[in-house]
Amino acid sequence: MRVLGIDPGTATTGFGLIEGLPGSADALRLLDYGTVRTAPETPMPLRLVELHEGIAGLIRDLAPDELAVEELFFSTNVSTAISVGQARGVILLAGAQAGLPIGEHKPMQVKQALTGYGGADKRQVQDMLLRLLHLDRVPRPDDAADAIAIAICHLQTARLRGL
Amino acid sequence: MRVLGIDPGTATTGFGLIEGLPGSADALRLLDYGTVRTAPETPMPLRLVELHEGIAGLIRDLAPDELAVEELFFSTNVSTAISVGQARGVILLAGAQAGLPIGEHKPMQVKQALTGYGGADKRQVQDMLLRLLHLDRVPRPDDAADAIAIAICHLQTARLRGL
Repeated sequence: MRVLGIDPGTATTGFGLIEGLPGSADALRLLDYGTVRTAPETPMPLRLVELHEGIAGLIRDLAPDELAVEELFFSTNVSTAISVGQARGVILLAGAQAGLPIGEHKPMQVKQALTGYGGADKRQVQDMLLRLLHLDRVPRPDDAADAIAIAICHLQTARLRGL
Repeated sequence: MRVLGIDPGTATTGFGLIEGLPGSADALRLLDYGTVRTAPETPMPLRLVELHEGIAGLIRDLAPDELAVEELFFSTNVSTAISVGQARGVILLAGAQAGLPIGEHKPMQVKQALTGYGGADKRQVQDMLLRLLHLDRVPRPDDAADAIAIAICHLQTARLRGL
């Protein structure tokens, strides 16, 4: 199964495509990763068009079987939450328009799935990324690494969801 | 100029279409109003598809010259802000995909534009709606009335924006 993980943001949205067996951490392969960026000087509605087209294009090109999106959980201010919510809205839209099953995973669930501990720090999560994907260095930027972790969480918890 | 005002929400999005002269409160006409609703039992990504199609359909059918969307300003919890942000994201997307100029107006600006006082209460705003539009009763539900007020604010402040 191919899972496209997405870490939503207005300026930078990270993505990571992995392939593996649902419910298993074996034979995981990292197929692609990167970011979709929009320029701060562009008016917000047009940035949302760019983001929507960017994600729709990734879905078309990478042909994932499922989409995994970070479920936001913010302690920062409300206007940031609205802005990220807007980005998340057009990403979920692009996934649903492509007919993909979509999983939403909280940061704590992602940490739990990768390290066995929901309170793991960034370093511990990235160490597990390296081990699970047999990589020499952590994919950059962090948005892409986070998106890959979300995709792995989705794949590993797939069996629990009865897929 | 025809302005489509929108009050965004995941469950109920209000809309109101008015026609009038930019920068003026004279000769205002209410052409249409109502809501786009999505069912709570539908998964969120599909609700966003329905909302996006609903707004795109309104833009196609009502042929507004400009879109006016409420700029959210929340004192409630962050997860509500993210949810409304998602709805707002696909609405701004639909407007931008249709090539429409989009204005965003804070609730205080809407009250200011309609009543001359940013701290006006709902009753005072609705009284001005009746007077400006020569109506006998306030359009229902409140989401639609709010959307009409946003459209009027957009039209009245259009001259200030140099349109």
